[in-house]
Amino acid sequence: RGAEGDSLPAKTSVPSTQVGWYDRIQLRGYAQMRYNGLFETNPDLGCSQCDKSWGTGGFFLRRIRMIFSGQIHERIYMYIQPDFASGGQNFVQIRDAYFDLGLDAKQEFRLRIGQSKVPFGFENLQSSQNRLPLDRNDGLNSAVLNERDIGLFFYYAPTEVRERFKYLVSSGLKGSGDYGMFGFGAYNGQTANLPERNRNFHVVSRFSYPMKLASGQFIEASFQGYAGKFVISRNPLTDFDQVEFPEFRFGPTFVIYPQPLGLQAEFNWGRGPQYNPETNDVEDAPLKGGYVLASYMQKTSKGAIIPFTRYHYYSGGKKFEVDATRHRVSELELGVEWQFHKALELVTMYTISDRSAQNSLDPLNRERGSLLRIQAQVNF
Amino acid sequence: RGAEGDSLPAKTSVPSTQVGWYDRIQLRGYAQMRYNGLFETNPDLGCSQCDKSWGTGGFFLRRIRMIFSGQIHERIYMYIQPDFASGGQNFVQIRDAYFDLGLDAKQEFRLRIGQSKVPFGFENLQSSQNRLPLDRNDGLNSAVLNERDIGLFFYYAPTEVRERFKYLVSSGLKGSGDYGMFGFGAYNGQTANLPERNRNFHVVSRFSYPMKLASGQFIEASFQGYAGKFVISRNPLTDFDQVEFPEFRFGPTFVIYPQPLGLQAEFNWGRGPQYNPETNDVEDAPLKGGYVLASYMQKTSKGAIIPFTRYHYYSGGKKFEVDATRHRVSELELGVEWQFHKALELVTMYTISDRSAQNSLDPLNRERGSLLRIQAQVNF
Amino acid sequence: RGAEGDSLPAKTSVPSTQVGWYDRIQLRGYAQMRYNGLFETNPDLGCSQCDKSWGTGGFFLRRIRMIFSGQIHERIYMYIQPDFASGGQNFVQIRDAYFDLGLDAKQEFRLRIGQSKVPFGFENLQSSQNRLPLDRNDGLNSAVLNERDIGLFFYYAPTEVRERFKYLVSSGLKGSGDYGMFGFGAYNGQTANLPERNRNFHVVSRFSYPMKLASGQFIEASFQGYAGKFVISRNPLTDFDQVEFPEFRFGPTFVIYPQPLGLQAEFNWGRGPQYNPETNDVEDAPLKGGYVLASYMQKTSKGAIIPFTRYHYYSGGKKFEVDATRHRVSELELGVEWQFHKALELVTMYTISDRSAQNSLDPLNRERGSLLRIQAQVNF
Repeated sequence: RGAEGDSLPAKTSVPSTQVGWYDRIQLRGYAQMRYNGLFETNPDLGCSQCDKSWGTGGFFLRRIRMIFSGQIHERIYMYIQPDFASGGQNFVQIRDAYFDLGLDAKQEFRLRIGQSKVPFGFENLQSSQNRLPLDRNDGLNSAVLNERDIGLFFYYAPTEVRERFKYLVSSGLKGSGDYGMFGFGAYNGQTANLPERNRNFHVVSRFSYPMKLASGQFIEASFQGYAGKFVISRNPLTDFDQVEFPEFRFGPTFVIYPQPLGLQAEFNWGRGPQYNPETNDVEDAPLKGGYVLASYMQKTSKGAIIPFTRYHYYSGGKKFEVDATRHRVSELELGVEWQFHKALELVTMYTISDRSAQNSLDPLNRERGSLLRIQAQVNF
Repeated sequence: RGAEGDSLPAKTSVPSTQVGWYDRIQLRGYAQMRYNGLFETNPDLGCSQCDKSWGTGGFFLRRIRMIFSGQIHERIYMYIQPDFASGGQNFVQIRDAYFDLGLDAKQEFRLRIGQSKVPFGFENLQSSQNRLPLDRNDGLNSAVLNERDIGLFFYYAPTEVRERFKYLVSSGLKGSGDYGMFGFGAYNGQTANLPERNRNFHVVSRFSYPMKLASGQFIEASFQGYAGKFVISRNPLTDFDQVEFPEFRFGPTFVIYPQPLGLQAEFNWGRGPQYNPETNDVEDAPLKGGYVLASYMQKTSKGAIIPFTRYHYYSGGKKFEVDATRHRVSELELGVEWQFHKALELVTMYTISDRSAQNSLDPLNRERGSLLRIQAQVNF
Repeated sequence: RGAEGDSLPAKTSVPSTQVGWYDRIQLRGYAQMRYNGLFETNPDLGCSQCDKSWGTGGFFLRRIRMIFSGQIHERIYMYIQPDFASGGQNFVQIRDAYFDLGLDAKQEFRLRIGQSKVPFGFENLQSSQNRLPLDRNDGLNSAVLNERDIGLFFYYAPTEVRERFKYLVSSGLKGSGDYGMFGFGAYNGQTANLPERNRNFHVVSRFSYPMKLASGQFIEASFQGYAGKFVISRNPLTDFDQVEFPEFRFGPTFVIYPQPLGLQAEFNWGRGPQYNPETNDVEDAPLKGGYVLASYMQKTSKGAIIPFTRYHYYSGGKKFEVDATRHRVSELELGVEWQFHKALELVTMYTISDRSAQNSLDPLNRERGSLLRIQAQVNF
């Protein structure tokens, strides 16, 4: 993986003399191919939010990302990231399309405009290029579908802390990228690539501090929260009348970076819409979820071998699914990431899962099972 | 904004010695984010042809354009411009995909093949990157949805005039780009990215002459017209039987470039299909529309501040809407474009509008109201 | 056309010193615009698999391809090719997205992962940028829709043979690109950009040997075959119950490269699903098809003029069409490719056709006729 994280601007500004467009704009990317069909005990077990090929068999292109980025002006950083494996038939669709306006000369204060990640949760902000488990945890990822929305975001971090955020990605320690020591944003709330459906903004705020101990060990602690009103999609054959629901979430993150033993934990609580199978209606309900991830980074001459395990849990609705589907997730994963070199990685991950996903179309759904999941990733 | 207009070929040809692909092909672009929700007096007032987020609330990515262009051979200029904010869900779709074949060594005579702008109307040809008002006027823009179609276009201008067209963009005077002193084209007629539905071509022709007065002031006068047969889409629940209609339009353009006071006016007359609410049928009917735009360019050390006002008017059908929807538009806009520097612009525009859009689904539609519209634009 | 074929990796590896991204990744491409409306004797004659604009009239963008490729690591070659004229409305969709992992230092043994061409048939593997007739022959192209699928492919060729494959493209002799002297693959089988619908892989194997005679004449002989189980889509108004069918195909290729007289022939036999109009059901049935192509390459100072003729024939089902539509195709083509220079080519082709395409929606379909087809192609 390259020296740049998801949103780390290059430090050099563009001089006023003529430079080629290829110096101003860079292109890099990554691609992931998966196979979820080995040792599958229950073919009905899947998670469409996580990985559409889980449960269907066959090879699958999970992500083909190309990132056009650059410091296009001494005060403006551009980041446009389409995905070339979207829409179920590999159409090209935007993920990120944002611009950072530096508010001061050192760019410690930044205003981000456009579609970008909502600063809620370390794993949500961390690039999928760097994450160890194949999919994000349901607990925090159910906060924002595709992790992104369109809005205005303000970030602040002193230069020293920005350098730390940058190092935590470039060093291979799998940081989140630089979403500020303090972040605040207002955004539509209906999630990425979908039109706004009410006239309310969501608001989000996050505080995160990465610390370097005298031993050289990095640790990071964060706290984040958001609130807003969301408009759900409902099964048209039912007689639900309410479609707009208030929602909020908050919670902490704690990370010990893998030098060599890593530990990472996040949790969030809140309320939001959730299908109730007993009343066959959607109601405002509590939600909670999170995870603990342990990893061990064994550096090799060309990359690293990283065994890891994660347990994650979620109890709540998924607002962006029909009827705000009621989910109960309990999943244990045991995996290894093999970095053969900078350009090629392989993840094998054994997953033991217990998932319920209940709505008016399938009010009793619950699937349990286990399987081996494999991913090859190429970085370019 | 860059030194290149929409279709201005670089003058240097590619030498036969090996050059990098990045010298032959250039990448540039721009992005627009909007917010239309301030001081809105009527939430039902909107214009889906102009801006899908008008009336729905929320932030909106109106355009994310990336332009791959270059003189790929001494006689061939390439221009491929996808939009990364298309289809309602930010899928990537082609806008321009054309190639200019130079017919003579000086390339005064050019044949353009592919999908490109139909040379009908100055504001239609001017890039949205340069236009002052947020959306094009209904009067002339209703001639060609998305301004483009696929066909063969022939352009002629002497080198001296080509230089003038180029300067009118690169200088920041907001010219149209170089669509020739004389242009003629044959094209499908069903507009961009849509399949042909009859076996008739549309034909278009345009004459435009930019003049430099002794005072250094630029003025430009044009006349344009087109004709063809268009196949409309109709509400399947009605008993319309005719779907193919003849249509034609013609009209003049007059531009005094803002040095510093600018004045711009266009008008067109014609006939085409239009829904008739009294007979609940679609009929061949007259149409007319146009606008007057005044602006004042106050140069600053880093860019410019440009107050402007536009009044525009349309009375006619929109052939590409269901039942060739009958429109009556009367709109007054008062705005300011703030160019902070080459890479960042902000437009704020107060709009006072009276719009009818009538078809068999909504035969009495009429909405009046006013609102403040805001756009941030980044050029890269 | 450039010196690179569809899958030919550059020989130079990336040194470990810092190089620009634009040295590691290259961009090239081509675009095709067609007009199929001249001297048409039967407007109902068409072939939607071949060219959606055949029979509808009007200009048509058949392909707009941009290829991002490069040796991104000394052992990894990347090839990402979106098409900018897909989905009927010019949306951008992936064609190729694959990575070649060199298994030995000389990269004679390669493992290809991702979506790529299935090695079945010379004309299927040859780039459309290089093919003489406007569309591929139905006989072998009906094996794999869009020629591609997602899977793992293994290729072997000694360096000397790899150089030969490369030369056969770079020299303008219209080779297939380098799919190995021996190839073997496992892939989903439901064809490119479509989800897997069963849990069976298809397997394919191919042997091909290009030989240089003492006279300098190149000839190539190949043999290929595949087998698997395919899930068809059926007309929901019928009472078919079987959707999964076994299928297999095999056959030889023989090519005499045009120095200056070229001859090319392929044929395949097999079994697969096919609609039966007599029983109004889909059945496992035999299939066969192929073609003979003759061409004469008249080199000119700037390019070449290549008259050609092809006769092709198919009798079998098309598994990826509704009800595995029953096809009977017999077509004779007479054409000329005019290479004006590296960047611009024109093909005119007179086609005399007899096509049946029968399914439960149209069980008696048969159309005969002839027409002139024209294509302009720009290479960049």
